[in-house]
Amino acid sequence: MTDNRSKFVKYIESHQQDLINILAEAIAIPSVSGDASYRPEVLRMGKWLHEKLGALGAQTELFELGRQNLDGHDIELPPVIVAKYGNDPAKKTILVYGHYDVQPALKSDGWDTEPFSLHVSEATGKLVGRGATDDKGPVLGWLNVIEAHRALGLDLPVNLQLCLEGMEESGSVGLDEFVERNAKTLFKDVDAVCISDNYWLGTTKPCITHGLRGVAYFKLTVHGPAADLHSGVFGGMIHEPMTDLVHVMASLVTPDAKIAIPGIYDQVAPLTPEERKRFEVMEFSISDVDNSTGSKSTVSEDKVEVLMSRMRYPSLSLHGIEGAFAEPGSKTVIPAKVTGKFSIRLVPDMEPETCVDCVRKHVESEFAKLHSKNTIKLEPDHPGKPWTVDPNHWNYEAATRATELIYGVKPDLTREGGSIPITLTFADALGKNVLLLPMGRADDGAHSTNEKLDLSNYVKGTELLGTYLYEVA
Amino acid sequence: MTDNRSKFVKYIESHQQDLINILAEAIAIPSVSGDASYRPEVLRMGKWLHEKLGALGAQTELFELGRQNLDGHDIELPPVIVAKYGNDPAKKTILVYGHYDVQPALKSDGWDTEPFSLHVSEATGKLVGRGATDDKGPVLGWLNVIEAHRALGLDLPVNLQLCLEGMEESGSVGLDEFVERNAKTLFKDVDAVCISDNYWLGTTKPCITHGLRGVAYFKLTVHGPAADLHSGVFGGMIHEPMTDLVHVMASLVTPDAKIAIPGIYDQVAPLTPEERKRFEVMEFSISDVDNSTGSKSTVSEDKVEVLMSRMRYPSLSLHGIEGAFAEPGSKTVIPAKVTGKFSIRLVPDMEPETCVDCVRKHVESEFAKLHSKNTIKLEPDHPGKPWTVDPNHWNYEAATRATELIYGVKPDLTREGGSIPITLTFADALGKNVLLLPMGRADDGAHSTNEKLDLSNYVKGTELLGTYLYEVA
Repeated sequence: MTDNRSKFVKYIESHQQDLINILAEAIAIPSVSGDASYRPEVLRMGKWLHEKLGALGAQTELFELGRQNLDGHDIELPPVIVAKYGNDPAKKTILVYGHYDVQPALKSDGWDTEPFSLHVSEATGKLVGRGATDDKGPVLGWLNVIEAHRALGLDLPVNLQLCLEGMEESGSVGLDEFVERNAKTLFKDVDAVCISDNYWLGTTKPCITHGLRGVAYFKLTVHGPAADLHSGVFGGMIHEPMTDLVHVMASLVTPDAKIAIPGIYDQVAPLTPEERKRFEVMEFSISDVDNSTGSKSTVSEDKVEVLMSRMRYPSLSLHGIEGAFAEPGSKTVIPAKVTGKFSIRLVPDMEPETCVDCVRKHVESEFAKLHSKNTIKLEPDHPGKPWTVDPNHWNYEAATRATELIYGVKPDLTREGGSIPITLTFADALGKNVLLLPMGRADDGAHSTNEKLDLSNYVKGTELLGTYLYEVA
Repeated sequence: MTDNRSKFVKYIESHQQDLINILAEAIAIPSVSGDASYRPEVLRMGKWLHEKLGALGAQTELFELGRQNLDGHDIELPPVIVAKYGNDPAKKTILVYGHYDVQPALKSDGWDTEPFSLHVSEATGKLVGRGATDDKGPVLGWLNVIEAHRALGLDLPVNLQLCLEGMEESGSVGLDEFVERNAKTLFKDVDAVCISDNYWLGTTKPCITHGLRGVAYFKLTVHGPAADLHSGVFGGMIHEPMTDLVHVMASLVTPDAKIAIPGIYDQVAPLTPEERKRFEVMEFSISDVDNSTGSKSTVSEDKVEVLMSRMRYPSLSLHGIEGAFAEPGSKTVIPAKVTGKFSIRLVPDMEPETCVDCVRKHVESEFAKLHSKNTIKLEPDHPGKPWTVDPNHWNYEAATRATELIYGVKPDLTREGGSIPITLTFADALGKNVLLLPMGRADDGAHSTNEKLDLSNYVKGTELLGTYLYEVA
């Protein structure tokens, strides 16, 4: 078995050009899910993957999800690809999730090279192109694992099932229902789930991820006059909705990013010494944040405090105001109706409903203090729950050992500040352990210009995914 | 002389249909200055007026102002029309200002009738159409005065000079320089100025206006990260520019519309008993504001307090935030750079420079309290000074007597909350008394849908303009 794994790793090491070639093919298909005019390319990308998987000997099927209306266009949703490789009842079955759609990209956005043409930088070892790290590289990592075993005439150590969607960058429309509907049929043999769609904490040390924050999004509307007014004529005479809103928004969060809403922190799970230790050992420094933000803006110089602010404490961000004057230039308007947008990142043991209650109570009490004649309305979006899983599970232990074998270090055990809603769907619908096993680095620029995946991360990441399967077995 | 005035008034009373006809002709020309595609119509409107004035026996001249770039189109600026009627050195010379361009209007904006076709409502006595009250009705009022005297074979009691521009709704591009350049030549004989381009305080009682607030506009930028960030990944870790900005903006003004910046009220001229009396006698009630705003939002139920808040005290309005998320929907962004827009309406004796100093000092002190690592920058636009003139001047006395003759009441002596920058230009460049003598009512909907001028205001307003000339003489 170990011998098979060594052969596999050696094969990958000596076929790097093949890995690059297949990534170049995938990146050349601009599978942007958020723009209706690109939808045929997303469908083409799905078909390309389906055919590749078929050619590699997988049992593969395309599941149609129906149609959607996007910006006034009635268009077909990209299908979900479900592929099975191996069907041995004596082996564990690992379900892998990934997505084949990408974020929009235009050279004019500020890319140095054409975003939909893989650029291999010999100097820096970077593979640059839209989707390189999010999520075509990791998806192809799994295909590379299968291809290597096929070429070597080896069976995989587990039954591998892939579930690949084409709408992740656009809200995963239809996927939740699909997974829930098929939990007891298509996915009935799954023993654990592995998702490679996040990133290392920094740029040098691998990690595995066992938690995500949830999110509760709020729209807070203050309504006054029937229509926008001229500030020359009415300024000073009336309660202005913008003034009210800005006062209430300022009461939500302190300048050092602490939530000022009573009751929020009461719900946060207490910090255990074991947990604190995990943050202390993480390879991370304040300069990592500074490099990512391009500024010096951390609320503390203490690495553990800053890490915990992101991973294990809630946060509140003010996103903007709808209905006010937002364009360049000067306009002397009193906006009649303004909607502040903000969201709270949720952590265990916060219950979204309790959080919404606290916000509602606080907003009402702060607004009452203003003695304004305007009206206020709070509208919460449907919240996403936080997710954490106990990392003392064979799925995580396998990923830890695999990382040690490939990278020679014990991975950091991280939690992400953001949300990957599909994680919760798999955890809840299948009732199985879900592992987040990233391939790329923190500075890959997933949704940004010049998105890249380092060749070493692609090669070693592919070796890691395969090795993880051996360790699971 | 009085006899001539009576003949004139009688002529207007018996020629109402002629007044309506000429207004209908003018409204049929969609002279929208703010839309490049309508520019030929603005030029046509200027030519139409120039020819009408010529036909009435005025010495009229079109002054070209050059070209402008509007939304990427290089187009001709509408000319200024300067017309003289009468040249008797024994008579006073009154300069009249008006504008022949209008705000945009489409039936689909919510008009009940075609905006560029005069609709005469027999039931309500309203003349509905874009420009009816702003400012074609008042401009034609002057032409009607001339036409009546011509038809009656009477000389005007003064030398009348008209200065009509076609860019008022789009910043009066080029007019300031034109007036300043010609102050000592074209306009050298002017004894006083009369502008009919504002409105009664309410709907029943005429007023004359002797003051305008100035305006100081500010852009306040907080800059943090180099690019927008994901609130999941960075929320909680960093000082967010939106949080800083909202805290500073909330410190500028109280919910009951009082300016919270130290030093601002120190500069306001003390209220004299005579002045307070003027507010007390004004025909005005809180419900006038409620009707205009379509809400109950006044900061006080005391009429005098509310009137003074608009006319003789400064005010601060928060207009909006540029750079934050302002679209519909939900987006979990931490904006990297946000610019709050606000403005302060200035009153005597506020000096714009002192006001800017107070704002700068306050903003810096409030931002320092936040202990944020972000940076802040305050950018004031070039401010417009407040304007008031002593109403104990023959120009105002003439307008007061004329109002009493036509309407049978002493007019309210008002100040406007807004700014009409050209007023200051005439006052400063010519060094003469400027009178604001409105024709329409507060509810005319100047920049709104279903703009109207009441027939009675048009007819009596025309009589008022003519009578004012007799009273001046």
